[in-house]
Amino acid sequence: MNRSLAVVCVSGGMDSAVTAALAAAQHRLAFLHAGYGQRTEGRERECFQRLADHFAATARLSVDLPALRAIGGSSLTDRNIPVREGAPEPAAIPTSYVPFRNAHLLAAAVSWGEVLGAAAVFVGAVAQDSSGYPDCRPEFYKAFQEVVRRGTRPATSIEIVTPVIDRRKSEIVTLGVTLGVPFDQTWSCYQAEDAACGACESCVLRIQAFAEAGVKDPIPYRTPVRA
Amino acid sequence: MNRSLAVVCVSGGMDSAVTAALAAAQHRLAFLHAGYGQRTEGRERECFQRLADHFAATARLSVDLPALRAIGGSSLTDRNIPVREGAPEPAAIPTSYVPFRNAHLLAAAVSWGEVLGAAAVFVGAVAQDSSGYPDCRPEFYKAFQEVVRRGTRPATSIEIVTPVIDRRKSEIVTLGVTLGVPFDQTWSCYQAEDAACGACESCVLRIQAFAEAGVKDPIPYRTPVRA
Repeated sequence: MNRSLAVVCVSGGMDSAVTAALAAAQHRLAFLHAGYGQRTEGRERECFQRLADHFAATARLSVDLPALRAIGGSSLTDRNIPVREGAPEPAAIPTSYVPFRNAHLLAAAVSWGEVLGAAAVFVGAVAQDSSGYPDCRPEFYKAFQEVVRRGTRPATSIEIVTPVIDRRKSEIVTLGVTLGVPFDQTWSCYQAEDAACGACESCVLRIQAFAEAGVKDPIPYRTPVRA
Repeated sequence: MNRSLAVVCVSGGMDSAVTAALAAAQHRLAFLHAGYGQRTEGRERECFQRLADHFAATARLSVDLPALRAIGGSSLTDRNIPVREGAPEPAAIPTSYVPFRNAHLLAAAVSWGEVLGAAAVFVGAVAQDSSGYPDCRPEFYKAFQEVVRRGTRPATSIEIVTPVIDRRKSEIVTLGVTLGVPFDQTWSCYQAEDAACGACESCVLRIQAFAEAGVKDPIPYRTPVRA
């Protein structure tokens, strides 16, 4: 059977790695990474390449989104805004929110998907139990689906798929273990590249997720982490 | 009165110049240009800067969208696909269509608008009487408005405004003359930067528009143009 192609947005984090595994079950894979001046871009891109090898992606593309760097407004892209540590505050938009970032990411994925003739774009966004970014909510992706339908060639038909958006982070870990996701080849920390800081919002969410799932997180942390 | 800020997407072409004049009547202006490897990027950017001076834009940003260059699939960004000459074929998507380009442009405009606290994003898209790009139709912008509403901070409220989308190109010329738009500081040609080729789809549409409006087009053409 000739499987259809899916563009998978792979940041190199745990959620996108599991999303890639889910996409791999149905599609040939085109892996997309986006750099936008985030602090851990190098480590992310390394994980992206290793995950692309692991999942035998037939195409891979690492794009740069310098507009986000130029625009700033986030602790991830502006070195003058410190990365916040600790668990995300409920109902607040954290300083790590990169304004409207996922629209840039989806735009790149859809453009590439349109040129490749892809049937789907997979994104590992997580809405609940996560950082509260507005561009990680199901309504955002539903609205974007309509933009794709309206803004591409009539022959293009790309479904936006967010398979883990409603899952708890701990469920994503469990699912990943079942699917054989190489979590040692993923990176979530917002601020460090040698060993994860264990303190930023993204580390805190990851550490909680692995602890709840009862799985040992295989990546290095600067300080020992209870699990 | 403290006027609200609008991000205006200014390619340097005639439609975006007139759109800028309409935005200027109501807002303070933040001018945005996007380079994506289009053949006439240098000339476009020059016009962008001159238009920003003319309209006294309080902020200006020229961003690069290298993802579109890397992805290709258009005669504007891929030097192996020739620029088509003559009037656009009705009901066909021309080879100059840059896949999903305007989603990238809007993403940049909205991100910047969110950081600046803008009330609107103006885009000079023209639907009818133009090239038939899917991302120039009203439905595309209407759908994108919903994406903006869903994908930005609760405090962000950005209206996507496409004031010339339903106008004929000749009406846009007439309107521009009324508003004092410096058409000599605009550029529409897809393939030449010294003098407009007069033959590509964009030149053909522009020449027709000025002829229909009975206005002399002030930019240089390689061959004399009937007007």
